[in-house]
Amino acid sequence: MALSVEKTTSGREYKVKDMSQADFGRLEIELAEVEMPGLMACRTEFGPSQPFKGARISGSLHMTIQTAVLIETLTALGAEVRWCSCNIFSTQDHAASAIARDSAAVFAWKGETLQEYWWCTDRCLDWGVGGGPDLIVDDGGDATLLIHEGVKAEEEYEKTGKLPDPASTDNAEFQIVLGLIRDGLKSDPKRFQKMKQRLVGVSEETTTGVKRLYQMQANGTLLFPAINVNDSVTKSKFDNLYGCRHSLPDGLMRATDVMIAGKVSVVCGYGDVGKGCAAALKQAGSRVIVTEIDPICALQALMEGIPVRTLEDVVSEADIFVTTTGNKDIIMVDHMKKMKNNAIVCNIGHFDNEIDMMGLENYPGVKRITIKPQTDRWVFPENNSGIIVLAEGRLMNLGCATGHPSFVMSCSFTNQVIAQLELWKERATGKYEKKVYVLPKHLDEKVAALHLGKLGAKLTKLTPDQAEYISVPAEGPYKPAHYRY
Amino acid sequence: MALSVEKTTSGREYKVKDMSQADFGRLEIELAEVEMPGLMACRTEFGPSQPFKGARISGSLHMTIQTAVLIETLTALGAEVRWCSCNIFSTQDHAASAIARDSAAVFAWKGETLQEYWWCTDRCLDWGVGGGPDLIVDDGGDATLLIHEGVKAEEEYEKTGKLPDPASTDNAEFQIVLGLIRDGLKSDPKRFQKMKQRLVGVSEETTTGVKRLYQMQANGTLLFPAINVNDSVTKSKFDNLYGCRHSLPDGLMRATDVMIAGKVSVVCGYGDVGKGCAAALKQAGSRVIVTEIDPICALQALMEGIPVRTLEDVVSEADIFVTTTGNKDIIMVDHMKKMKNNAIVCNIGHFDNEIDMMGLENYPGVKRITIKPQTDRWVFPENNSGIIVLAEGRLMNLGCATGHPSFVMSCSFTNQVIAQLELWKERATGKYEKKVYVLPKHLDEKVAALHLGKLGAKLTKLTPDQAEYISVPAEGPYKPAHYRY
Amino acid sequence: MALSVEKTTSGREYKVKDMSQADFGRLEIELAEVEMPGLMACRTEFGPSQPFKGARISGSLHMTIQTAVLIETLTALGAEVRWCSCNIFSTQDHAASAIARDSAAVFAWKGETLQEYWWCTDRCLDWGVGGGPDLIVDDGGDATLLIHEGVKAEEEYEKTGKLPDPASTDNAEFQIVLGLIRDGLKSDPKRFQKMKQRLVGVSEETTTGVKRLYQMQANGTLLFPAINVNDSVTKSKFDNLYGCRHSLPDGLMRATDVMIAGKVSVVCGYGDVGKGCAAALKQAGSRVIVTEIDPICALQALMEGIPVRTLEDVVSEADIFVTTTGNKDIIMVDHMKKMKNNAIVCNIGHFDNEIDMMGLENYPGVKRITIKPQTDRWVFPENNSGIIVLAEGRLMNLGCATGHPSFVMSCSFTNQVIAQLELWKERATGKYEKKVYVLPKHLDEKVAALHLGKLGAKLTKLTPDQAEYISVPAEGPYKPAHYRY
Amino acid sequence: MALSVEKTTSGREYKVKDMSQADFGRLEIELAEVEMPGLMACRTEFGPSQPFKGARISGSLHMTIQTAVLIETLTALGAEVRWCSCNIFSTQDHAASAIARDSAAVFAWKGETLQEYWWCTDRCLDWGVGGGPDLIVDDGGDATLLIHEGVKAEEEYEKTGKLPDPASTDNAEFQIVLGLIRDGLKSDPKRFQKMKQRLVGVSEETTTGVKRLYQMQANGTLLFPAINVNDSVTKSKFDNLYGCRHSLPDGLMRATDVMIAGKVSVVCGYGDVGKGCAAALKQAGSRVIVTEIDPICALQALMEGIPVRTLEDVVSEADIFVTTTGNKDIIMVDHMKKMKNNAIVCNIGHFDNEIDMMGLENYPGVKRITIKPQTDRWVFPENNSGIIVLAEGRLMNLGCATGHPSFVMSCSFTNQVIAQLELWKERATGKYEKKVYVLPKHLDEKVAALHLGKLGAKLTKLTPDQAEYISVPAEGPYKPAHYRY
Repeated sequence: MALSVEKTTSGREYKVKDMSQADFGRLEIELAEVEMPGLMACRTEFGPSQPFKGARISGSLHMTIQTAVLIETLTALGAEVRWCSCNIFSTQDHAASAIARDSAAVFAWKGETLQEYWWCTDRCLDWGVGGGPDLIVDDGGDATLLIHEGVKAEEEYEKTGKLPDPASTDNAEFQIVLGLIRDGLKSDPKRFQKMKQRLVGVSEETTTGVKRLYQMQANGTLLFPAINVNDSVTKSKFDNLYGCRHSLPDGLMRATDVMIAGKVSVVCGYGDVGKGCAAALKQAGSRVIVTEIDPICALQALMEGIPVRTLEDVVSEADIFVTTTGNKDIIMVDHMKKMKNNAIVCNIGHFDNEIDMMGLENYPGVKRITIKPQTDRWVFPENNSGIIVLAEGRLMNLGCATGHPSFVMSCSFTNQVIAQLELWKERATGKYEKKVYVLPKHLDEKVAALHLGKLGAKLTKLTPDQAEYISVPAEGPYKPAHYRY
Repeated sequence: MALSVEKTTSGREYKVKDMSQADFGRLEIELAEVEMPGLMACRTEFGPSQPFKGARISGSLHMTIQTAVLIETLTALGAEVRWCSCNIFSTQDHAASAIARDSAAVFAWKGETLQEYWWCTDRCLDWGVGGGPDLIVDDGGDATLLIHEGVKAEEEYEKTGKLPDPASTDNAEFQIVLGLIRDGLKSDPKRFQKMKQRLVGVSEETTTGVKRLYQMQANGTLLFPAINVNDSVTKSKFDNLYGCRHSLPDGLMRATDVMIAGKVSVVCGYGDVGKGCAAALKQAGSRVIVTEIDPICALQALMEGIPVRTLEDVVSEADIFVTTTGNKDIIMVDHMKKMKNNAIVCNIGHFDNEIDMMGLENYPGVKRITIKPQTDRWVFPENNSGIIVLAEGRLMNLGCATGHPSFVMSCSFTNQVIAQLELWKERATGKYEKKVYVLPKHLDEKVAALHLGKLGAKLTKLTPDQAEYISVPAEGPYKPAHYRY
Repeated sequence: MALSVEKTTSGREYKVKDMSQADFGRLEIELAEVEMPGLMACRTEFGPSQPFKGARISGSLHMTIQTAVLIETLTALGAEVRWCSCNIFSTQDHAASAIARDSAAVFAWKGETLQEYWWCTDRCLDWGVGGGPDLIVDDGGDATLLIHEGVKAEEEYEKTGKLPDPASTDNAEFQIVLGLIRDGLKSDPKRFQKMKQRLVGVSEETTTGVKRLYQMQANGTLLFPAINVNDSVTKSKFDNLYGCRHSLPDGLMRATDVMIAGKVSVVCGYGDVGKGCAAALKQAGSRVIVTEIDPICALQALMEGIPVRTLEDVVSEADIFVTTTGNKDIIMVDHMKKMKNNAIVCNIGHFDNEIDMMGLENYPGVKRITIKPQTDRWVFPENNSGIIVLAEGRLMNLGCATGHPSFVMSCSFTNQVIAQLELWKERATGKYEKKVYVLPKHLDEKVAALHLGKLGAKLTKLTPDQAEYISVPAEGPYKPAHYRY
Repeated sequence: MALSVEKTTSGREYKVKDMSQADFGRLEIELAEVEMPGLMACRTEFGPSQPFKGARISGSLHMTIQTAVLIETLTALGAEVRWCSCNIFSTQDHAASAIARDSAAVFAWKGETLQEYWWCTDRCLDWGVGGGPDLIVDDGGDATLLIHEGVKAEEEYEKTGKLPDPASTDNAEFQIVLGLIRDGLKSDPKRFQKMKQRLVGVSEETTTGVKRLYQMQANGTLLFPAINVNDSVTKSKFDNLYGCRHSLPDGLMRATDVMIAGKVSVVCGYGDVGKGCAAALKQAGSRVIVTEIDPICALQALMEGIPVRTLEDVVSEADIFVTTTGNKDIIMVDHMKKMKNNAIVCNIGHFDNEIDMMGLENYPGVKRITIKPQTDRWVFPENNSGIIVLAEGRLMNLGCATGHPSFVMSCSFTNQVIAQLELWKERATGKYEKKVYVLPKHLDEKVAALHLGKLGAKLTKLTPDQAEYISVPAEGPYKPAHYRY
């Protein structure tokens, strides 16, 4: 795509694939609203007081139908919003166009190149004169990363006159980031520092992004307050677990139509995401094997009847491989060579480096046959045997299906809204330092409570006597902070 | 589409949506071959002797990728083949075009009108000069029906000069059938009788089609031998059960992206199809309710922890409704009016008359909003509340997803191939009368055996002593005919 | 125990372990009645007309609490009853004593020797002057066997003067049978022939017993009509499947307290019993492996995510072994030697010859350590490694626990009552020849229907129009005979 | 039982039911050792250095076979041990006698009165001259409670001369505690204060006991350091969850033989214990309903397909009721009156006050019929309808079955051993203040690791590069403290 910003008749900037899909997107957004009671409750509760009046929010988060409902919740509460996707394949183009037409500045389409991806991220942060956003909604931390790298480079440039050098790294993606910062430096050597100054904070929703934030906190390099939404119970134990339990088989079926029953599956990692994946595969009739580094998670798998093996030991017996680790170098090209013909390899954990895509692409004589977008058969020259890689090693549930369903995303996104409200409300009070915070338990419980009615649930109420007996307030919070659910 | 037959450069007739999808179809056919060990084993075992040499086979069966592998198995065994789909939404256009280009005469596309559907069926049976097919592969019995109705009309016309009168029936689809026969009668008043004479037999693979055959047998009106493939264990207890367990959630997810976990589902009917659907929904975290007429099936549901209620009692509490009965008038418009907003209504059982589509369409003031093809929201005027109907009430796994996965279809289709081989081999021996037959148990066991290797299974062998002890041949068949599995 | 018949004050014969347990037995019988709606409904429906007036019924069937409710249903319908157990370990002594005290002549206790067992069976058939029973309720066919062997021996003796020779067989149990017949022959050389003449028929409820009956029918040696209750759907697909799903883990836990989660289990055989066992183990968190001879059952296991292997391949990896085959020589002493220390070996299928108990007992140097009754550790001399054998290789759910729960036995036993009623009603009409019959489907459906209310189920009713559409009577039966459920 | 201490020939004190069961106990202890790899590994690792040399350990914890292996692990590491049970029904008499004979001073039998219970607890703490224990292993906190109440009373007495007055409380059990302290005060008014001085600390393993400790910490009344073993992941997420998943159905089946399939169950509370119970019941074919106060746990239930209702709404529909809350007054006599005839009511959570036993016993005209020990039918006079209460409202898995299986208890108890080692090692360092501590994560992971080999698991190892990428040590601990598993 030509990388130029377009404008709606009302003057709002955007860059999406196809504006003609906006009506379709709107219809699906309306369906999703019925499935997202937490977000709709936020509109009802907070909409009238317009708490985000005056706030600029930039979001870097899969531009899906569900995200559209999040965005329109933020705007319903008074915010101005700019958005990009946090994954090159995860945008749903009809969602992007509906939002671009009706509600916010969107820069996202399904199938961006890495160059395009970072251009979009940059546009999302670009509020024109007066600098950047007040608040960031982040997923994976790329928006936060860009600002931190930008500030670092500007400070280095100020001190030493040295521009960032893409050649200084092997990582193809990071080369693009450095290039982008370098090019910007020339026109505005204070751009990211101005952003930093304006920024009230970020709320981040993935394990990976949160890990980066805690590292920066530990290193003392975090530039603004952060709320870790990922570790809300109503996020990590819902979205990660139940979301993946839904969207892993969805992605497998849409991409390959393969019968899961009877097959042998290997799930690398048995954290929340792995637990959801293993449950889904097992229930569909697959024999599941787990690989783990952590003995506690390993013992949990065993208690569910799932054997724990190493990848090496099972690589040639399995039909389906799923990475869920949040780590890198999980399935290497040497593993892939030993797999059965048409074994399926996919990632639902984190970046595409869980799978050694680089090693695969560079394997001498390897042949790539694209069955359809996001579904490639790679054939090794030695034995003419192929494997099927989904979504080019990126998140397969977003690349091959439509991501997590609305209901579970409503839990995650209600946490986001509440975190954003909190950051914005306390912007001048100093309550939040340049640290990483989690939401207090009563807000976590509130998010859950907002989702019960839709499913017809009715809670029991503690009597004062019972509440005293177990030493909790009758209206909650009910559990100590360390409770594991 | 303009209803005119096209021809390949080699002169083969066809009518499909888009020949440019043939390459894509071929790639998916190649993937499916790896998942269909039963069919591939037939090619290996029977291909060299070309047993179908000289046989014309007409098939009326969902024109999917899996069916493509069936068709090319038949041609690999020497047959000439013509094909149509048995459902207006079930064709996969890339499969149809690959077969049309490479292997057989195909008349099928996704989204036929009823008029087009019967035109395709008619083309499929039309082998030009010399009449019709030698063998029919049927699914639902529409090809068989057309011939039986055709013969009946010709005989009536011969006797009384009366042409069939579409106005004599309320059923819109049957009006089309009668019209088609009437129009044909004028040009060739013996066409269907000639077909009947040539026909060696039919193999039929659904409960519904089989039921029709047994009725015709009971009435003495069956015109040629029939093999009931549906009641092979390796069909009814696999395709119906495990196939639907896979394809029901697939269809739901592709059509609506709805989160199944937490929802209340009603499965109407707890036969093999219903069992598969209920299992899938339960495993995905839905609370399932079953409706049943048969106390034995009802008690089975209860033993699995599934309550048995009437539709009337639960219609306003549930989120998802699935019909699997093989009967008509299961979910009526009066039910639909009482449902929750955006309740999902779909059919995976049989014809679209399981759901009262006619009643819905004719409901005064009802509004149909097409979200995307096969996903319609119908809004009632009284309360502005809508329901979501999938695949216009037709088989949702074929309309909204890609039908059953290859592996389970390999079981069903290997039964088809074996049945066709049997009918053709015995065409002159009189072994098969104008009755309905099932395949003998040893062939059923053979179909299963052909699918074990792919899944890494290893059978135990009976010792002669053990075989004698339980009075079965050491090499099978192992079970009495009445065994229920 | 001293083998002498005792008498109640009312003069009824019995031999049980401990009459003081009768009150306890009565309490549990009363609890069971609430769980056995089918039997209680028979009392309500048939009790007033006393259809068994004048009938003598001998039963050879596990003398449990549930059987007590069966016996008292038979007596409530007017029958006189004598009873023995069909397994040396399966009697519940409190049940036996309550029945002996209150209702019928019982000869049964937990832990009979084989000698005692056959003495009990003999007593059960011994109605004093006037010969034997009118009807037999059989489980496993031992009562039927004794009569058939008795008649054979008497006829041989009549013809040749030859007495049966226990030394003519290796089978220790059959030696006892022959000895018993031989001893009887001397005092009454026509006893079994008189029995045969009086006998109206038998109803038999296990796979094993039914197999024997069909063999006798095939050989033309069946002496009286038999109703195969085992193949009622409401028996084989309920008792075998759901009963074992309940009672296998119950037996394992009572006998060994072993944690099932995390363990590797091998289920030999994947018929109805094996399916129930595998489901229970899998749900409890065990990794289950199945062995099978039948490719169809093997493919069913695979579709549920259960691998199919041979015993040889897995014998040294597994923790729990369960035989469910109905065949002999499944787990041999050579297998047992290779098992892990404290592997559990048990049988829930059929006779104790599924496990090579003879081979184990005769193994040189083997040491048997009885942990508690029915739980033995057998230590091999080579490696001092032991295995744990339950119930001496006999049915572990009856030996180590209390058999199947009341509710599922209500289904089986209601079939028994209906079969007995049918045989008795038709005793003079010649309807039943010396053949094996199954109950008609409408009675099978009736048995199911009688059990729905207890579980709160509500059936849907067919409209006349729907009934006609699918060509079944609106009130059933709903399925063709070959339907597999 | 006469409350007098007995002595073994070697002079060790004890009071158990029946010393002749010691051999049986020993056999089961030997079986359990094979299932408790964590404890056996402790013996191997620490046994040689005798770290508990000189330490007196008093334990108040269900005196079962598994606890016997714990006790003998403590003695194998050099400790002297005295033991009592923490529940009047949970002792396994054969385990108690084997330990009393071979290893430690035991005061425990199945079916203690409350008076006997507290006598046993008192004996367990009574180390003769020189005061009390160095360390306490506690479960539920009764030993800790007795010391705290004792110290409080002694201090009060010192100050005011006032003796504790049993009449000052309604709670029948607390009356006994006060009486016991009062009687002791007369003979030794410093007894508990001396104990307090000697005490190094306590390790506590239940939610209930831990809650009390945190309250005392909050109130500043905690008298010695405490390690909260309950909140080790390898305890709360294993014992509570998987233990109850095993032992709930075990208790139900042993107590009532009721068929779980088809029944409606209500699980009050969906914490770890409730999750295990609900999973077990669901898998056994029951329809499960959950009651909850906490919206997060409620939403978890819903995601598993389990409806959340109030007890009032479902009390008359359900067949089985299980309390798991850790709170009081969950099922009141007014609920019980409305239940179906023979509904089963039991508690697996905490004290018997989860069920209103007092209300039941005092209900006018209520009749108690003891079916067998721990299984009572209570009949209401109004409608002659009864309910079945297990274990008199106390923990039914311990009262009606044998508690949790060895393997899962090995996890819990290995935590206990490690905690005791830690307290003892640091007894003089001041590391532990009068506060509540949890074990560090690397010890938690170690406990898990010790249990993997038995189940055949193999862990994956992080490469240094991967470890750095996710910022954890390659050898663990792998997760942040707040991780929820």
